[in-house]
Amino acid sequence: MLRTTSPSYSITLRVEIDNKIGMFARIATAIGEAGGDLGSVDIVKVKKGKLIRDITVNARDERHEKEIVRSVKRVPGVKIIRVLDKTFAAHRGGKITVQSKIPIHGRDDLAKVYTPGVARVCMDIHQHREHVYRYTLKGNTVAIVTDGTAVLGLGNIGPEAALPVMEGKAMLFKEFAGINAFPIILDTTDKEEIIETIKHISPTFGGINLEDISAPRCIEIEERLREELDIPVFHDDQHGTAVVVLAALINVGRLFRRDIKRFRVVIIGAGAAGYATAMILNHYGIKNIIVCDRRGIIYKGRRQGMNPYKKRIALKTNPNGLKGTITDALKGAHVLIGLSGPDIITIDDIRVMAPEPVVFALANPEPEISPSEALPHVRVLATGRSDFPNQINNMLSFPGIFKGLLEVKASGVNNEIKVSAAKAIAGCITDEELHEDYIVPSIFDREVVHSVSSAVAETAKKTGLSRV
Amino acid sequence: MLRTTSPSYSITLRVEIDNKIGMFARIATAIGEAGGDLGSVDIVKVKKGKLIRDITVNARDERHEKEIVRSVKRVPGVKIIRVLDKTFAAHRGGKITVQSKIPIHGRDDLAKVYTPGVARVCMDIHQHREHVYRYTLKGNTVAIVTDGTAVLGLGNIGPEAALPVMEGKAMLFKEFAGINAFPIILDTTDKEEIIETIKHISPTFGGINLEDISAPRCIEIEERLREELDIPVFHDDQHGTAVVVLAALINVGRLFRRDIKRFRVVIIGAGAAGYATAMILNHYGIKNIIVCDRRGIIYKGRRQGMNPYKKRIALKTNPNGLKGTITDALKGAHVLIGLSGPDIITIDDIRVMAPEPVVFALANPEPEISPSEALPHVRVLATGRSDFPNQINNMLSFPGIFKGLLEVKASGVNNEIKVSAAKAIAGCITDEELHEDYIVPSIFDREVVHSVSSAVAETAKKTGLSRV
Repeated sequence: MLRTTSPSYSITLRVEIDNKIGMFARIATAIGEAGGDLGSVDIVKVKKGKLIRDITVNARDERHEKEIVRSVKRVPGVKIIRVLDKTFAAHRGGKITVQSKIPIHGRDDLAKVYTPGVARVCMDIHQHREHVYRYTLKGNTVAIVTDGTAVLGLGNIGPEAALPVMEGKAMLFKEFAGINAFPIILDTTDKEEIIETIKHISPTFGGINLEDISAPRCIEIEERLREELDIPVFHDDQHGTAVVVLAALINVGRLFRRDIKRFRVVIIGAGAAGYATAMILNHYGIKNIIVCDRRGIIYKGRRQGMNPYKKRIALKTNPNGLKGTITDALKGAHVLIGLSGPDIITIDDIRVMAPEPVVFALANPEPEISPSEALPHVRVLATGRSDFPNQINNMLSFPGIFKGLLEVKASGVNNEIKVSAAKAIAGCITDEELHEDYIVPSIFDREVVHSVSSAVAETAKKTGLSRV
Repeated sequence: MLRTTSPSYSITLRVEIDNKIGMFARIATAIGEAGGDLGSVDIVKVKKGKLIRDITVNARDERHEKEIVRSVKRVPGVKIIRVLDKTFAAHRGGKITVQSKIPIHGRDDLAKVYTPGVARVCMDIHQHREHVYRYTLKGNTVAIVTDGTAVLGLGNIGPEAALPVMEGKAMLFKEFAGINAFPIILDTTDKEEIIETIKHISPTFGGINLEDISAPRCIEIEERLREELDIPVFHDDQHGTAVVVLAALINVGRLFRRDIKRFRVVIIGAGAAGYATAMILNHYGIKNIIVCDRRGIIYKGRRQGMNPYKKRIALKTNPNGLKGTITDALKGAHVLIGLSGPDIITIDDIRVMAPEPVVFALANPEPEISPSEALPHVRVLATGRSDFPNQINNMLSFPGIFKGLLEVKASGVNNEIKVSAAKAIAGCITDEELHEDYIVPSIFDREVVHSVSSAVAETAKKTGLSRV
């Protein structure tokens, strides 16, 4: 299918045009003929007989950008001065900065925030270590740590290439939760070295957000750090997704007026997100979960393609010891949760499910099945994409979860907290609003972060992880 | 000696006063009698028959703060509502934040700075790793790393208690050089673990500023990292100080119209700063340097109280193999550089020096000799303090040095760069301005950072450490 134009392929053409009537229409036509989507148009300068304009165009991809430029170039009386790619322009020099909260105008300021005044604050923290939360950034600061091995859908591209994603994530932390987040990209992919490094740098931070570390290492890294550190450690690719999936399922239950604990749920994908989703659904009380990987159903005693986490999956799921293919697993299932890769399932797979099937096809950017093909065959469809209803996006969970954890100086994070976050997300949609096409709130619904953080803070207090 | 009041012991008293003539005068008297230094006075609110005022007072220390409060409390018709310590207030919640450069208003913004647009930037860096300097914060970001073992004059107070200093330093980086600096405080004091940790987190950063790590570990940590990393590593306590000392000495040479290479220089203190200062003066070409530690003169073949760095000092200094006490070293010396502790030298020590002695008594906050006692006996006196002329403060060096290094994406830092920085600092004072009481510029002279960064960038290019 032909992709649509996107603001992530947005270019601004600075053109010098003969100042004659009808010139702009010709350029607009040239852009339109090339399939470009015309955006804002600004006049930069008027010279004698010439006009300089900035014309922003959304394209489909980089090749399409070039086609549009060529098409505009061919218009007589038009000279292209420069072409600015807005996505690359937005990244110039990085997307985040470190700022001072107080200006230093002179010695008096210096004496308060640095020597000699700072020594008093140091000694106060030296005597009362918990005051580090009060007098430093720690209480509102998270490290976003990656080794660059599983970045977006790009795979193992290394730490430097992962940095723009981590900076973007830091922006989301600030924008949605007011949290300082700082990217730490690691030059090692060794599990023990990653664990040691994060432990050593942890005192600066009130929490650790692990990001884009490949499975199954990410699972062990997180588990070890959760045991060994006294701040929350949260692998967003696992739990961020799992929490939103649970939230969506809770709302499916409300919509269907059925107890989701009795649903038969098939998870396709036994990587980081699949594992975490299976665990949280199990914790929530869903008894009949089947997890499949590329070899088919995971069951107790399976020998091939296993790892310690798949063994744990086998213990906690598949109560009837089902064996076979993905299609075998789907027979009579109420819910399919795809956390794998593109084009893994077909309409025929959906046809074997129970009536009114629920399909979450969450592989990104290309889902397990084409959403437009699947839509007529399901009652509820959710994807990871923004161009279909029901976007399962961990932006709904991680900002509020960390905000709640930091508010109570949490010493860790547990399943109860994650479930409370899922319930809070689900609760952002009222009974009246709830609909097949509206089972999770919008990522731009600012109410979500407050609901989630309140629920998380309260649950942290109840479960003994709060330090306030 | 009685300390003077200081803005680092500044309190704001919120008081409710009977709205009668003469009341404020009585409060001012009470503050004055207690020795407090009255600052700003604001009216917060006027109630029926009552006035609420904020009165800011500088005190000498915390005990003095309490005396002042007690003195004000005794004034009839005055009720103290609250006392705010302005230094602690300035530290509430930390002094630095991480900010986004671009707001995220909706999906179009998100598509540029995060998924899906960010993937294009990631792949560009994946293909051209050096573009990490162009499209991420790396090119303008420094880590400030400490293990909290030698913080200010406070000693080994641990990482959490060191964090306010590191945040203050980050503020200086931003304020004086526009650089993002982020504090990394380490939960280990093990040399190898520190080296490994810094190596593993280095990809995020364009440079590493080591801070307040105790000697001699700091020297080896820096040397190892300089060998093993491809970004500049700079232990500010060593070289920041050494560069400013050299700058001051260069200006002493200009003032005296003498070649400082022929000066006989005695350095007291063989810790991080003493070692680095000896090395840079040696590199500059000063032949006759004697370094003393608490056991006296360091010489080739000395057996007691040595370490690898003192051995290197012995090889590079003391060409005549002098032995003996600090006083023996000072006989006939032109310059004394104290980088040790309080009250190490006496007027009698200065008397044995060559005529027109130059004394840099840089121990902080209490110098090697009382500045007011020393002043009549020397031609030039410098200290680390702001309440005497000629403050040797590494704020003159590190912002400009890092700015210059980052400008050329430097792969390291060398002696030539440090010497060029020292010359640039010295050059900020014109021949006309140069004076016994003005051998180094003010830390608030914004010209310094530009001079230093230009010199550093140029020298990095000349010596092959530039990557532009």
